[in-house]
Amino acid sequence: MKNTYGSAVTVTLFGESHGAMIGAVLDGLCPGIPVDEDAIKAALDLRRPYGKISTARREADEFSIVSGVFEGKTTGTPLCILIPNTNVNSSDYDRLRAVARPGHADYTAYEKYHGFSDPRGGGHFSGRLTAPLVAAGAIAQTMLAAKNITLGTHIARCAGIADRPFSDLAVDLAALRAKRFAVLDDDAAKAMQDAIERAASEGDSVGGVLETAVVCMPAGVGEPWFDTVEGVLSHALFAVPAVKGVQFGDGFALCDMRGSEANDAFRMENGRVVTETNHNGGINGGITNGMPIRFSVAVKPTPSIFREQRTVDFLRNEETTLTLSGRHDPAIVHRARAVIDAVTALILVDLLTGRFGTDWWTAE
Amino acid sequence: MKNTYGSAVTVTLFGESHGAMIGAVLDGLCPGIPVDEDAIKAALDLRRPYGKISTARREADEFSIVSGVFEGKTTGTPLCILIPNTNVNSSDYDRLRAVARPGHADYTAYEKYHGFSDPRGGGHFSGRLTAPLVAAGAIAQTMLAAKNITLGTHIARCAGIADRPFSDLAVDLAALRAKRFAVLDDDAAKAMQDAIERAASEGDSVGGVLETAVVCMPAGVGEPWFDTVEGVLSHALFAVPAVKGVQFGDGFALCDMRGSEANDAFRMENGRVVTETNHNGGINGGITNGMPIRFSVAVKPTPSIFREQRTVDFLRNEETTLTLSGRHDPAIVHRARAVIDAVTALILVDLLTGRFGTDWWTAE
Amino acid sequence: MKNTYGSAVTVTLFGESHGAMIGAVLDGLCPGIPVDEDAIKAALDLRRPYGKISTARREADEFSIVSGVFEGKTTGTPLCILIPNTNVNSSDYDRLRAVARPGHADYTAYEKYHGFSDPRGGGHFSGRLTAPLVAAGAIAQTMLAAKNITLGTHIARCAGIADRPFSDLAVDLAALRAKRFAVLDDDAAKAMQDAIERAASEGDSVGGVLETAVVCMPAGVGEPWFDTVEGVLSHALFAVPAVKGVQFGDGFALCDMRGSEANDAFRMENGRVVTETNHNGGINGGITNGMPIRFSVAVKPTPSIFREQRTVDFLRNEETTLTLSGRHDPAIVHRARAVIDAVTALILVDLLTGRFGTDWWTAE
Amino acid sequence: MKNTYGSAVTVTLFGESHGAMIGAVLDGLCPGIPVDEDAIKAALDLRRPYGKISTARREADEFSIVSGVFEGKTTGTPLCILIPNTNVNSSDYDRLRAVARPGHADYTAYEKYHGFSDPRGGGHFSGRLTAPLVAAGAIAQTMLAAKNITLGTHIARCAGIADRPFSDLAVDLAALRAKRFAVLDDDAAKAMQDAIERAASEGDSVGGVLETAVVCMPAGVGEPWFDTVEGVLSHALFAVPAVKGVQFGDGFALCDMRGSEANDAFRMENGRVVTETNHNGGINGGITNGMPIRFSVAVKPTPSIFREQRTVDFLRNEETTLTLSGRHDPAIVHRARAVIDAVTALILVDLLTGRFGTDWWTAE
Repeated sequence: MKNTYGSAVTVTLFGESHGAMIGAVLDGLCPGIPVDEDAIKAALDLRRPYGKISTARREADEFSIVSGVFEGKTTGTPLCILIPNTNVNSSDYDRLRAVARPGHADYTAYEKYHGFSDPRGGGHFSGRLTAPLVAAGAIAQTMLAAKNITLGTHIARCAGIADRPFSDLAVDLAALRAKRFAVLDDDAAKAMQDAIERAASEGDSVGGVLETAVVCMPAGVGEPWFDTVEGVLSHALFAVPAVKGVQFGDGFALCDMRGSEANDAFRMENGRVVTETNHNGGINGGITNGMPIRFSVAVKPTPSIFREQRTVDFLRNEETTLTLSGRHDPAIVHRARAVIDAVTALILVDLLTGRFGTDWWTAE
Repeated sequence: MKNTYGSAVTVTLFGESHGAMIGAVLDGLCPGIPVDEDAIKAALDLRRPYGKISTARREADEFSIVSGVFEGKTTGTPLCILIPNTNVNSSDYDRLRAVARPGHADYTAYEKYHGFSDPRGGGHFSGRLTAPLVAAGAIAQTMLAAKNITLGTHIARCAGIADRPFSDLAVDLAALRAKRFAVLDDDAAKAMQDAIERAASEGDSVGGVLETAVVCMPAGVGEPWFDTVEGVLSHALFAVPAVKGVQFGDGFALCDMRGSEANDAFRMENGRVVTETNHNGGINGGITNGMPIRFSVAVKPTPSIFREQRTVDFLRNEETTLTLSGRHDPAIVHRARAVIDAVTALILVDLLTGRFGTDWWTAE
Repeated sequence: MKNTYGSAVTVTLFGESHGAMIGAVLDGLCPGIPVDEDAIKAALDLRRPYGKISTARREADEFSIVSGVFEGKTTGTPLCILIPNTNVNSSDYDRLRAVARPGHADYTAYEKYHGFSDPRGGGHFSGRLTAPLVAAGAIAQTMLAAKNITLGTHIARCAGIADRPFSDLAVDLAALRAKRFAVLDDDAAKAMQDAIERAASEGDSVGGVLETAVVCMPAGVGEPWFDTVEGVLSHALFAVPAVKGVQFGDGFALCDMRGSEANDAFRMENGRVVTETNHNGGINGGITNGMPIRFSVAVKPTPSIFREQRTVDFLRNEETTLTLSGRHDPAIVHRARAVIDAVTALILVDLLTGRFGTDWWTAE
Repeated sequence: MKNTYGSAVTVTLFGESHGAMIGAVLDGLCPGIPVDEDAIKAALDLRRPYGKISTARREADEFSIVSGVFEGKTTGTPLCILIPNTNVNSSDYDRLRAVARPGHADYTAYEKYHGFSDPRGGGHFSGRLTAPLVAAGAIAQTMLAAKNITLGTHIARCAGIADRPFSDLAVDLAALRAKRFAVLDDDAAKAMQDAIERAASEGDSVGGVLETAVVCMPAGVGEPWFDTVEGVLSHALFAVPAVKGVQFGDGFALCDMRGSEANDAFRMENGRVVTETNHNGGINGGITNGMPIRFSVAVKPTPSIFREQRTVDFLRNEETTLTLSGRHDPAIVHRARAVIDAVTALILVDLLTGRFGTDWWTAE
């Protein structure tokens, strides 16, 4: 399957950072979903670089949907989104073709593709391919919102600075939608941005943790073995460049708890089964329990830094050093937030469509 | 796909904790692999409960391979492993059918299966189903070992007590193979076991972190989008009951590093490209780089505890309390180690078979 | 996927003709389906050899369902059916290991599995593996029947003798359920059986055409590209040993028609859209139109014959001759009928589950 | 999966007949394949309408490859082909939106997509989507040809007129490559074209049978159950609009043979195992035997005819009549030939990549 993911609803990604265009095909969507180009544009804007904390490459991200939409609504057949690459400066990369950038996929791509892959700007490995993913995810978010399922992601941690935890999710998710830099606590936001700028000024980069919450997912979605909600989501989340860890609920912090502390007691609330705490992140035995789905991902610091690094020329098999120039992000955690939202929405739509059928959204 | 996972090599799990038998079908195996029943038995033994730190349910785990092996070697057609359930005591569970055990899948199963799933001993959700997974994984480990790819898992942390980190992997992995309680530092091992017993004596349970390393995986395996090594592995790892987090390389600790620290510098060693550090866990851009694959999983404390817990009766939609009796593990982290090894081996064999073809193992 | 097929509902086959047992895992079934062991037995009986027109190997086909059923109903988790092999006479095959039986898979198995596959009785390639498929299909037929979707298959042609075409499907399908030798016209049935016996007495074998009809499938199931109803069904039908052709509606006969003749005019009947004719077999553009699904499969004559045949020893790479002994069917078309019904039912259940969700059968 | 097909190599189709563009994403291709735009253009030309025997809609089919190719060779990452729709005349279709064209998917699309699908020119169901499939197939044919695997398709039958059978395949396949109207016997070709024109002049259409042969496929490719070569190929072939039957080797004609006639005797030829006859079409037990793969498909007469037809308005649920105008093909069998070649090449490349790994083509 490789660049296609999903069961009932699938997404296929294609393109390279410096090629003519990048895009995604979204298949299995219910028919009749209004496609709101402004919502897609807004989602893409949250992913776009800005200010001093992002790369100087500024793409217009002018997408066009060339199939699967008729008279403003999804047809139910494959929806293809195209985004041209316009602001391309390939000369920066030409000399790198055989010199592996540490932390990047140059060397592993060489081992896999035998030197035929497009090296310009990271080629197919580029974070740029998350743009069509974000566009596709915006449609999925529209679907979910229409069924009162909402989600959002904040930067829980960046450059060693922590945001406050989620509290009232309805309020916090609404607040995040309005924020370009997705941090709940404004002081923390300021401190993180300062830290990113400081790292940038030192030719370095920083990473962070993104925490996501989903409210109003119905209970009973997911599978006990292999296609657990955790497994299906993490599979897709690890495709987001720089993600190196995924944890659900309290995740690694659960390891130091006792069972009496980690178990979420059930109780009734307005005739509905709920849990008192949510250490398990809304998932028991791989299946949603109706409580908020909560997970976080680890985003490593951007590997493109401007300090001299030791590396090898893998064609000559000899050691060398490398000092990058060009345009790079000193952090991507604030941009990745839009990607995580998109991936999450796509996977939830896939799970719901498999569970409730291809008419689940359209019916009534 | 649900209970089947894999692309070139697939595993299908079936069975319930208190049913007649549990089993696995392993498909896509290369032909000609010697099936060493002692190796399977040894792997199953590592997963079996023992001592005071495990459940009193002691299954013989007498497996039989009923297809896919001829004259002691794999045929290349589906291999089915069956393990009968013999030591079954279902009466413990009868009264629980509508009372959700906190941290377990009783309620989510009800929402998904509308009350038709087998509730006895957790039914299909039971950790017991990892036994055929371990048996299948033992065959995969034989395959890998024949190509010098070895792997192992230690309890990096349990009940708040840390093992020493991996150092010389060849030595450490060999040491782990000989240990029933997979901890590198003997003092830490003792302290962990004491802590498990203490929790047990208090009717409680503990969790932990398992860390896995794989050496000698070839470079160039994995895909850039979706079927990254991280994504494919995590998808399967989250199926292991109680796993709530997966991180590769330094994982969440990467988030507080700077790029200059997190990047693994490349250098040459004996004509081979290697990295000086391995913060990225042997994977760049979703593809192996030939360095050891390193990841860890968070195992939450066993949800079955013997303290009174608040919960609901989901048929009557009313609150109640629950005090479990029966036989339960105060920790599963030491048993889960064998499961993580098995899952890892199966996924690596799948990736290698997809990459190098169905003859990769058989051909000279 | 290899030995697993399906999307929302999957079937995995394992076993060899002379191994300990054969079986199937059926996953993705809706919960709550009553599992009628008599119905399974009846379906298996239709597949069992009998009289002079079948092999002398008579297996009891005593199946057991070891998972996925609780208190007589499906749980929704994987259902595993096991059927032991009891009447095994492997000595017949020992000398054949390197001598390719014409029309069989001995040589192709050798090329694929490098001599490691189980040669006894055809091993994994044996038609014997259709027994668990039939058992699994019987459960699928129960599901369909409960929703008024019924199906049946007759021998449209055997040894050059034609049955009468389907006329009133309700009547014909009911009649077929009561017939062990599935021919609508009794004179044709007699003539076919005589022809099979005659071929058998001459050490030869015959083939035939099976025609299947399904009534009351809802309209709107299937996909326009690739996962057309025709494509999904044919994929599975070609797995049935000896099937070499599949055609829908009038199939190859459509090629000599003109469009004005082949098009099925629509009209209203009791407020429902129907077609006047059904040349397209109930499928337009890959999607069901609510009319009976109609298709036929070509079953080649059984390749096991008792005449001397020219062949090769593929280990020595030399020509030789071969005269089979042992127990073989002079025709399988009458037994294959139960297999075609089973495969059809399984695929329809898969399509319906994908279309209407995992509750489609259970709800209300 | 729906509009994506394949295992190791996948193709995803998108677009509608009168949308902005149509396209395909081809994933899993080996790296380093030279992409010959002239070969793609030549393949597209064989599919393009021409003369009086085709629709008057003449699309330029100016394709562009926007990803997956770098410096003229495949990168190994997804290759996306786009073909704009330029010669679009949608007004012809506007009035049809609720009137089902007999033999077309209008009504079934309505049942599946609830009126949201694009009705213009058949929308996503249009045969126009075979253009990107042909372009993708041309790349697959380049791959195969480089390994001496060649294939071709002739019109074995059209409007009741038969071509001569294949004889010397090397000669015949070479001859077909040079022919726009793929008939081996020139008199038969003339008679078929006359018959198509005659049908056109009468406002009617004709169908036909396409027969395909593949030479030099290695033995040992395919799977015993479900993913048989027959099953995998037929699944894709039935996606080609108007295909209603697929048979391998002698197909339905095998049914009237005896086993002694249908079995293909093995013999040695130049140290290689071959069969004397090829009634089984190069496939035994679902796996290639090294002999030519031979199959044929039934192509029904084009459903678009210019005679008055009885039908229904499915929005009003009332009967009506319909007389099409616009531009339509009186036959598509001669154009479908290029599509069958393309689909066949894609599937063979998929099978070979799964069997021999992602380097099978690239490695020396």
